[in-house]
Amino acid sequence: MDRTEAHRWLGTALAEARAGLAEGGIPIGAALYGADGTPLGRGRNRRVQDGDPSLHAETAAFRAAGRRRSYRGTTMVTTLSPCWYCSGLVRQFGISRVVIGEAVTFHGGHDWLAEHGVEIVLLDDPDCVELMRDFIKHHPDLWNEDIGE
Amino acid sequence: MDRTEAHRWLGTALAEARAGLAEGGIPIGAALYGADGTPLGRGRNRRVQDGDPSLHAETAAFRAAGRRRSYRGTTMVTTLSPCWYCSGLVRQFGISRVVIGEAVTFHGGHDWLAEHGVEIVLLDDPDCVELMRDFIKHHPDLWNEDIGE
Repeated sequence: MDRTEAHRWLGTALAEARAGLAEGGIPIGAALYGADGTPLGRGRNRRVQDGDPSLHAETAAFRAAGRRRSYRGTTMVTTLSPCWYCSGLVRQFGISRVVIGEAVTFHGGHDWLAEHGVEIVLLDDPDCVELMRDFIKHHPDLWNEDIGE
Repeated sequence: MDRTEAHRWLGTALAEARAGLAEGGIPIGAALYGADGTPLGRGRNRRVQDGDPSLHAETAAFRAAGRRRSYRGTTMVTTLSPCWYCSGLVRQFGISRVVIGEAVTFHGGHDWLAEHGVEIVLLDDPDCVELMRDFIKHHPDLWNEDIGE
């Protein structure tokens, strides 16, 4: 895909991540885009804010997009490599592409998704890396709780 | 694990599934149990009831169990073989065991979980099979929507 568009979409996910940080939450954001580039839903990790461990950024964006008959052609944009939970979401629902801000601070299931035909666009975005690196440094317990480690 | 206890726990998940059916929903139920057998959370698929595609039975039970530091020793009991989304949840959070009502009407990711060290107890429960078989027969569109097919 076009890198400029990928970075623009990442900006939406990053805005969600930063809003989460401002709320005292875990700063991971995501957004789901339709095949034609229409924004379908966006969200952020809500473990702290809602006391809800099931709402990772990707599942929050998926939820916000509501019920859909098909995810063919859709793109999940996320500030961080998706964990197994969120990778499973992408695979089960046939989301076609995942745009990832960074996979330096956490390497999730995106190689597995690529093996199963999902297009992976890894952006190595320095703002995303810095955001997570700072968060993990200052809140290691919260971060480990969020990934079950 | 003890089969009698597995069937008893499955009864909780099946009650959730039947409650979902009575609400006009997709009849899949689940419950999370602690290492000592304490019930931690239970839930059912809420796609229809809440218009929420992110709440599969297993994610609903996980959500109901609230924030936890560790899932070591826990058991996820579900009426139906977990899809990739729910299998990813189990793997990411280190849930130790999955008790499955049936894998006849849908074969999800439980072989993959077994490969990654999760104990799988498959019960081949005829009530679970009948519940899903009837539902899929009468509501194929809803079912396909729920698994992204």
